[in-house]
Amino acid sequence: MYIGVLMKHIKPSGYVQLGYKPTANDLVCQFYIDPGKGLSVRKAAEHVAAESSIGTWTDVCTMSPEIQKIGAKVFSIKGNWAKIAYPSELFEEGNMSQIHSSIAGNIFGMKMIDGLRLESIHWPKSIMKSFRGPMFGINGVRRITKVKDRPLTGTIVKPKLGLNEKEHAKVAYEAWVGGLDIVKDDENLSHMKFNKFEKRVTETVRMKEKAEKETGEKKMYMPNVTAETMEMLRRARFVKDSGNEYLMVDILATGWAGLQSLRNENRDLKLVMHAHRAGHAALTRNPKHGVSMMVLAETSRLIGVDQIHIGTVVGKMQGKKAEVIDIEHEMEDTMIKEHDHVLGDNWGDIKPVFAVCSGGLHPGHIDDLMEILGKNIVMQFGGGCHGHPKGTRAGGKAIRQAVDAVMNGIDLKDHAKTNNELAEALKKWS
Amino acid sequence: MYIGVLMKHIKPSGYVQLGYKPTANDLVCQFYIDPGKGLSVRKAAEHVAAESSIGTWTDVCTMSPEIQKIGAKVFSIKGNWAKIAYPSELFEEGNMSQIHSSIAGNIFGMKMIDGLRLESIHWPKSIMKSFRGPMFGINGVRRITKVKDRPLTGTIVKPKLGLNEKEHAKVAYEAWVGGLDIVKDDENLSHMKFNKFEKRVTETVRMKEKAEKETGEKKMYMPNVTAETMEMLRRARFVKDSGNEYLMVDILATGWAGLQSLRNENRDLKLVMHAHRAGHAALTRNPKHGVSMMVLAETSRLIGVDQIHIGTVVGKMQGKKAEVIDIEHEMEDTMIKEHDHVLGDNWGDIKPVFAVCSGGLHPGHIDDLMEILGKNIVMQFGGGCHGHPKGTRAGGKAIRQAVDAVMNGIDLKDHAKTNNELAEALKKWS
Repeated sequence: MYIGVLMKHIKPSGYVQLGYKPTANDLVCQFYIDPGKGLSVRKAAEHVAAESSIGTWTDVCTMSPEIQKIGAKVFSIKGNWAKIAYPSELFEEGNMSQIHSSIAGNIFGMKMIDGLRLESIHWPKSIMKSFRGPMFGINGVRRITKVKDRPLTGTIVKPKLGLNEKEHAKVAYEAWVGGLDIVKDDENLSHMKFNKFEKRVTETVRMKEKAEKETGEKKMYMPNVTAETMEMLRRARFVKDSGNEYLMVDILATGWAGLQSLRNENRDLKLVMHAHRAGHAALTRNPKHGVSMMVLAETSRLIGVDQIHIGTVVGKMQGKKAEVIDIEHEMEDTMIKEHDHVLGDNWGDIKPVFAVCSGGLHPGHIDDLMEILGKNIVMQFGGGCHGHPKGTRAGGKAIRQAVDAVMNGIDLKDHAKTNNELAEALKKWS
Repeated sequence: MYIGVLMKHIKPSGYVQLGYKPTANDLVCQFYIDPGKGLSVRKAAEHVAAESSIGTWTDVCTMSPEIQKIGAKVFSIKGNWAKIAYPSELFEEGNMSQIHSSIAGNIFGMKMIDGLRLESIHWPKSIMKSFRGPMFGINGVRRITKVKDRPLTGTIVKPKLGLNEKEHAKVAYEAWVGGLDIVKDDENLSHMKFNKFEKRVTETVRMKEKAEKETGEKKMYMPNVTAETMEMLRRARFVKDSGNEYLMVDILATGWAGLQSLRNENRDLKLVMHAHRAGHAALTRNPKHGVSMMVLAETSRLIGVDQIHIGTVVGKMQGKKAEVIDIEHEMEDTMIKEHDHVLGDNWGDIKPVFAVCSGGLHPGHIDDLMEILGKNIVMQFGGGCHGHPKGTRAGGKAIRQAVDAVMNGIDLKDHAKTNNELAEALKKWS
């Protein structure tokens, strides 16, 4: 029988089935397609569906009618937008690298199309169930941090590189006693010649405990464990053994295989996982090519980070308001209804993720930020804390004062009249 | 002293030092910068240098003159091109994720610039020495494959998904006895419901040994081990235990942390590592934003793959001729002279990498391809093998016939007069 198939040339077809209704077994992708000259969106979408499932550029002797059944299907085309359904047989459950190699793989390089962007994914239950999702999620983080309803406030130690371990711990201490909940290593601070990972963690956790005693508040430290996988896991274990509750990782510089390994190891470690997205904008920034931040965020929720940077709308980094709000909903809601170009999802048991806003924020942004994104966010201030004219501790105070004002419905400028640190911050950065 | 520093505001500066000569200690990046409205390339470059080293968007109280010394320096601006030197203190040796989080991290998302592309890297010796590089390199691969001077020829089993283990092994066998050296799993074939990893490897290695006996030639099989890191390493060990010499991995879907782990494990396994680049074009395609394929290839050589896809010029995937040739030189030469926008490098002991051409190739491309890229390449044919009118074995024959023709200086069309398989291939795809 096989040789029969081998000799029978079957022209690949059926990649476009407009009106097809995706089954519960299908993974669905929303693509923006910019077809090349002389190509229709339909034809371009057909080639995308083929290349990302079972087809190639010519008919092959090894195709069979049975195999054709698991081909991807373009079932909706609206303008430049195409929805493609992929039978889940095309994917290995629990293997995110394999899934991305299919739906975010070769297709971006096809000569015949000018641009292609993977905008949103609908995940079928069978695939959702094969990943762990967050260990803590928003409720778990709120339980650990003992912060019930306001946004979490944090800082990134600045300068991002250059301080030694003790200086780093001292800056962290200043931020904590100023009033911030969280201190985070920056994306490129790992195990440096001038600041060794283990010594930094030890010193900073020591200062964290001191700050907790002095303030009576729970404080968090997020050490950056980013490294080759085995070394990363070793660092994560060191963080646990140091009595710390949190870690942070550069998810894109690490990659999906390493991130999954860290999440697996975390079954034992039980650390809150904070996801930094350094490098995402190389993929996400062009609205007509690449992979959306929505897709990176969905992927990260599924693998199981507890917190992820989604943008600030108001700070130094790009990210449009509607997109950032959409991503926040995808991170914190259970039922996502299809709207605009975002596909629906039922996250079921997969816990919600805390959305993190960071990048160029200062206290004067807090009212706008909370109006746009609500209270279920982590707000992080680097320069906007340590750049305070009176230093880090005053910066931390100004941030907490601003949060208190917004939580109590008081205008920032009014609140600044009786809160010097906030007044100075608003004066510097207005 | 520290508190003194803490209270002293130092304006970040010195990020632009035109005329500065990079030291042997500096890592240098070539960026293309598309500044936002009203911003000069110089000003944009200054912000890139700050954000990717020690600066942020505002002055901070924690900066010190000592720390300023390790700031990155923009030392050349030509049109939209800027070269930035980074003291190697900014990087953790042997940690590629940390390096990429710096020089290919937040900077792509800065609101004030419209586009930014990391085009090329010069690696200082201290960082080069901290990575393993290829275990085999071109000479090692030629020793194992016993192919002395012609290009290596291979196929990717097609359809990329859908065949079961025995069918897969049978297609591989047909390709090998047809005359091809290599059979490779495709990027999205891992451990599927219809095609389990271990059974596929076992069956295919069995057929490989049969093909070797029948042809008297050495044959290679590249099973795709892409998965979560621990599972990937387990699969790699299984490949070794099966008596196979090669593996293949999706480097971008895996990520740098996982790829380094695989290379580390390979100290014991001693398998030839073949790098598929599925997904690269989401990063590399836009000439004004993202990360170049050159940078991904340099990074991969340093980590230590033995073979990497670099483009075909002539096939179904994009990739300009000059760029593909530049990447091939960066992969196979030891001394790279600075030219155009490619920075110089001295690869020293780091072995050369075999450049792989794949994607929409058929036998009629072979003369052009060898004229452009020479003999030190691996050429892979998917549809261009299995799409042959007489099937996979005839496809393999046609490819070898074309290679023989070019090696002997014979025109493909002339050679086709006495070689039926080549004639049929040229007829179908001319």
